[in-house]
Amino acid sequence: MILIHTPSSKEVAAYLEQFRAALPQQRFITLDEMIEPEAVRYVITWGPPPALFAGLPNLQAVFALGAGVDKLLARDDLSPQTPIYRLLDGGMAQQMSEYIRFGVLSYQRHMDVYRRQQAAGVWKMLAPKLPAQVRVGVLGLGEIGSAVAQALAADGYRVSGWSRTPRQVPGVDCLFGDEGLDELLAGSEVLACVLPSTPQTQRLLDAQRLAALPPGAMLINAGRGDLLDEDALLALLDSGHLRCAQLDVFASEPLPHGHRLWQHPAVTVTPHIAAITLREEAVRQIAANLARLAAGEDAQGRVLRERGY
Amino acid sequence: MILIHTPSSKEVAAYLEQFRAALPQQRFITLDEMIEPEAVRYVITWGPPPALFAGLPNLQAVFALGAGVDKLLARDDLSPQTPIYRLLDGGMAQQMSEYIRFGVLSYQRHMDVYRRQQAAGVWKMLAPKLPAQVRVGVLGLGEIGSAVAQALAADGYRVSGWSRTPRQVPGVDCLFGDEGLDELLAGSEVLACVLPSTPQTQRLLDAQRLAALPPGAMLINAGRGDLLDEDALLALLDSGHLRCAQLDVFASEPLPHGHRLWQHPAVTVTPHIAAITLREEAVRQIAANLARLAAGEDAQGRVLRERGY
Ligand SMILES: NC(=O)c1ccc[n+]([C@@H]2O[C@H](COP(=O)([O-])OP(=O)(O)OC[C@H]3O[C@@H](n4cnc5c(N)ncnc54)[C@H](OP(=O)(O)O)[C@@H]3O)[C@@H](O)[C@H]2O)c1
Ligand SMILES: NC(=O)c1ccc[n+]([C@@H]2O[C@H](COP(=O)([O-])OP(=O)(O)OC[C@H]3O[C@@H](n4cnc5c(N)ncnc54)[C@H](OP(=O)(O)O)[C@@H]3O)[C@@H](O)[C@H]2O)c1
Repeated sequence: MILIHTPSSKEVAAYLEQFRAALPQQRFITLDEMIEPEAVRYVITWGPPPALFAGLPNLQAVFALGAGVDKLLARDDLSPQTPIYRLLDGGMAQQMSEYIRFGVLSYQRHMDVYRRQQAAGVWKMLAPKLPAQVRVGVLGLGEIGSAVAQALAADGYRVSGWSRTPRQVPGVDCLFGDEGLDELLAGSEVLACVLPSTPQTQRLLDAQRLAALPPGAMLINAGRGDLLDEDALLALLDSGHLRCAQLDVFASEPLPHGHRLWQHPAVTVTPHIAAITLREEAVRQIAANLARLAAGEDAQGRVLRERGY
Repeated sequence: MILIHTPSSKEVAAYLEQFRAALPQQRFITLDEMIEPEAVRYVITWGPPPALFAGLPNLQAVFALGAGVDKLLARDDLSPQTPIYRLLDGGMAQQMSEYIRFGVLSYQRHMDVYRRQQAAGVWKMLAPKLPAQVRVGVLGLGEIGSAVAQALAADGYRVSGWSRTPRQVPGVDCLFGDEGLDELLAGSEVLACVLPSTPQTQRLLDAQRLAALPPGAMLINAGRGDLLDEDALLALLDSGHLRCAQLDVFASEPLPHGHRLWQHPAVTVTPHIAAITLREEAVRQIAANLARLAAGEDAQGRVLRERGY
């Protein structure tokens, strides 16, 4: 028996229908329909309620309806032995590339400056910049980050990327480790973050590292909110060291009422929409994984607890 | 003798240096240096002062330092017999593609809506749209418009284009003439205009044609300001029929102080920067044309007075 749960019952109903169509021989249920918790072997979920997993003694695996699994890994009701599988791209890389391209284009073409000029009624042309004159650093070169970096390189930007282990991405200057990070920060007029949240990456973007960006740089964060020290960012925007920021993820979501980020003229706030799970693609991937497990094969997208993603 | 003139003496100095380096055997002068107007055979210019051409009895051709020549064609000091040559692309198509891509991306990814939500402190996700779900109409399929349309098609948007005569652009549904326009308007969620200003195109985007766009559509105008009825646009934005606009050109430039477009929350104003002439490329093209004329060949980019562009 396979339990499907997300915070939206409408969404659950849509997933139910599609999973049943994809795997008619399997039994999919909702939380309301669960009368025998012992019978649940798999959970397909995003934002499961507290203690859910503790009540499922025969749970064999969890399928996350997204790419980031920091919240699942942090739960104390889930045995470290229970495998977690996450979504691999499935349209998210394309969406993320669009989201970050929008920010980079905005920076390259001074659209943020023109917006501020507009608010002040100022008509003033700025010297044009070509893509080859803009250096972009991408933090994270996984399923999503490597696609983002390649898309930006194809647009003509000078792109560096950073990962934990050495990577190769065509057209991208790939760096890794602590030294690689220092080099990347110093050379990134736009820093775009698509890292997962792990004990190693939390608060990575602190005051010192943000200050290491060149004057007038832009920050895009679409990884996780806890990677960034928001107060440090605000201070560097206020001092003018950083020009602007485009943020999709926040230390606390929804971004709290009255938070300074809402009103800062140099900040673009989006409500965690950079790369949304596409239902059909999620069903396709998870159904394929369920079929693999049923056939005794390895499923794809296994999260490695020891590395935190 | 070849006269170089633009409203900026710094710019003139830069052009002088580059033209002299490109064609050392020719004599290039500035307006200040002009003591024998009879000796001037060519003028290379953008924004020439009134009556300039009337004082040049032996003028053989004018080279515009841009793609749009509506202002030159409207002058009464320039004989209709004097050929005008304009710049062909030269990096402008790429810049224009970026400018329009920014607007289309903004529309597709609801960035304009999120900006308004941000101003109101509202955290609300909107259903994602894929590029294939966004229909874009491009008015003008010349040097610049055809490149814009192709770039958008390559991004995955559903693109239609419109021109005076039948055109073929790979991946683009090409329409022409009055009927073609009706069809294009009805099917364009984003309408991007890169038409020249001619007696036929002026006020083309009037109340009726803007109202023919689907509800919730966006207008991007980067052609010329007089193509658009600005009051009609404002009324349709206020009524909610149109969702937003990105405008680079205006009926009067600089956009006058206090103009409603400056402050409208659904309007992005940029100061005529969508596609700026790149100096090196302009020098390369005009120098090549001067060499062609010297060799008795036809120069490229000749403006046809009878069609108005
Ligand atoms: N805002 C949104 O809408 C949204 C949507 C989807 C995903 N996301 C975020 O994006 C993240 C990445 O997704 P993904 O599918 O690309 O994940 P992924 O395939 O696991 O890639 C993660 C990348 O981060 C690198 N990394 C991890 N820890 C690191 C460290 N300590 N130092 C340097 N690099 C490190 C990894 O390095 P290696 O290559 O060496 O392993 C890898 O390149 C997700 O975890 C999620 O937080 C956000
Ligand atoms: N905002 C900026 O920074 C900026 C920068 C550069 C240029 N521009 C504007 O962009 C315009 C286009 O430049 P371009 O180099 O692409 O010009 P172009 O090569 O001459 O192309 C003009 C296009 O407009 C079409 N057209 C002209 N009159 C028409 C009419 N009455 N009905 C339908 N289509 C018509 C032409 O149709 P055919 O193909 O049938 O001839 C052609 O496809 C310039 O004139 C200028 O106004 C703006």
